[in-house]
Amino acid sequence: MTSVQVVSTVFGVGCVENDDIAVLDTPFPHVGAVIEATGSLDVLTRSPVRERVPLQGAALLAPLGTPRSVWGVGLNYRSKAAHTGRGLPSEPILYLGASSAVLAPDAEVSIPTGQTVEMDYEGEIAIVVGRRLYRAAPEEVWPSVAGITAANDMTARDVMRTTAAPTLAKSFPGFNPIGASVCTVDEFADLDRIPVRTWLNDELRQEDTSDGMIFSVPDLLSRISWFAALEPGDVVLTGTPAGTGQDRGSYLRPGDRIRIEVGPVLPLVTTVEASSRDHPSTRSSPSDMH
Amino acid sequence: MTSVQVVSTVFGVGCVENDDIAVLDTPFPHVGAVIEATGSLDVLTRSPVRERVPLQGAALLAPLGTPRSVWGVGLNYRSKAAHTGRGLPSEPILYLGASSAVLAPDAEVSIPTGQTVEMDYEGEIAIVVGRRLYRAAPEEVWPSVAGITAANDMTARDVMRTTAAPTLAKSFPGFNPIGASVCTVDEFADLDRIPVRTWLNDELRQEDTSDGMIFSVPDLLSRISWFAALEPGDVVLTGTPAGTGQDRGSYLRPGDRIRIEVGPVLPLVTTVEASSRDHPSTRSSPSDMH
Repeated sequence: MTSVQVVSTVFGVGCVENDDIAVLDTPFPHVGAVIEATGSLDVLTRSPVRERVPLQGAALLAPLGTPRSVWGVGLNYRSKAAHTGRGLPSEPILYLGASSAVLAPDAEVSIPTGQTVEMDYEGEIAIVVGRRLYRAAPEEVWPSVAGITAANDMTARDVMRTTAAPTLAKSFPGFNPIGASVCTVDEFADLDRIPVRTWLNDELRQEDTSDGMIFSVPDLLSRISWFAALEPGDVVLTGTPAGTGQDRGSYLRPGDRIRIEVGPVLPLVTTVEASSRDHPSTRSSPSDMH
Repeated sequence: MTSVQVVSTVFGVGCVENDDIAVLDTPFPHVGAVIEATGSLDVLTRSPVRERVPLQGAALLAPLGTPRSVWGVGLNYRSKAAHTGRGLPSEPILYLGASSAVLAPDAEVSIPTGQTVEMDYEGEIAIVVGRRLYRAAPEEVWPSVAGITAANDMTARDVMRTTAAPTLAKSFPGFNPIGASVCTVDEFADLDRIPVRTWLNDELRQEDTSDGMIFSVPDLLSRISWFAALEPGDVVLTGTPAGTGQDRGSYLRPGDRIRIEVGPVLPLVTTVEASSRDHPSTRSSPSDMH
């Protein structure tokens, strides 16, 4: 197996090597394209290094570009279930998020004014599929995984209450930061105890490991694969542990900074735009809808 | 505005001209890539013709390739609502389907044995987004649409009952045929009365127009755009009228042939595999899961 940590940059796809990024000579625009085309990150270990740039200050792109499918699961940690007071689900609560919500590392997300006043973070372990999984047994899952990364599965709690649809509560633009790097499974000391931690403004808010999951990574992807084929480059967000804003009744505010760490993955940092508003420049029309 | 009807073929992207396909000299692998890159089909009217092949017998590919997001809506025709006896929904029931379910025209779909015995067709008008829509007003929708096509939003009714999740009931491989061609909006005589018809084994089963929708095309896409950005190449399935198998308690069987016609769009034909089974060749692993 390949052991490698990779990023997408404006210079191309690169391997993280100590404090540097070894930018590789490949035809791929981002790490996701490597996985879609080859099913793994192996090819990157054989690509010549084109140049080295310092990791610090490097502008990282969304490592997976815009994935085709981003699956998610509601209530998948015992710590979170204990907090809500609900019993453990007997089946995973599965949904798809719009991939137009994917955000690059170190980017800003704006609060969708008028739609939510309860925007919340969810630190999660994200699994990137390498080989197609359909009707797969749990033991087929890890050998088919191309990599592991971090995700912030942001949720408008009030939209979730009024629509009961995770897809709608989690698909606003920028609500799904993914990255900052993608690590092969061999980069993790123990796949049964992948650590996940979330800091809000440098205060630790979530801390758990994949051992606290109700449906383990292999079980979860296997179950999805009985309803839909998971294709190379597809992403599965595996749920969030206790410690979200919801658990304390406090939500994200302009200027807040969320940092999510998943084992050796480069920290995923997202900032809530200081003066949250819509960007007319990204609108499809200049007319004012507010 | 451009008036054109286009298809994706093994020879390249082409325009339908009477009984021929004018295969164009473009760098795009399929119609979806044209829309993702340029926001419309306009560029195809200016592309030189490389060769002409007869339409009849031409092997058509999925015109949009694998779209990033495929949105759907539950219960969006008054005829269907009347049949179910339920009242009209006050908000559209929105969901995403896995794009791995997309199937090419004239292809076979297999019944996912062991998962469903109630596989059903749903003839639908499918809208292909050309320009990004976010927080868009209904009047911004049609000018941002790149094309209209047909879709069969197949559903495992029993999975829908047990999971209450359209995403799971509609995402099995092959459950989402799209095509056969994509038409610009100018190809339609009346955008408020787009006809949709479904034949099962040459018997007419569904017949309605978009005038029978509860949430019109502009209203539907506008409403989605208040929760998520619709990006170029994204597809919105706009609901199915009365006349599905569910309405008569009879479901699809091996050998069944479904044909869906949406105005001038080339008919979308799908056949249920005669001896339905899983294909070991498409499995991620040779081990037997049955």
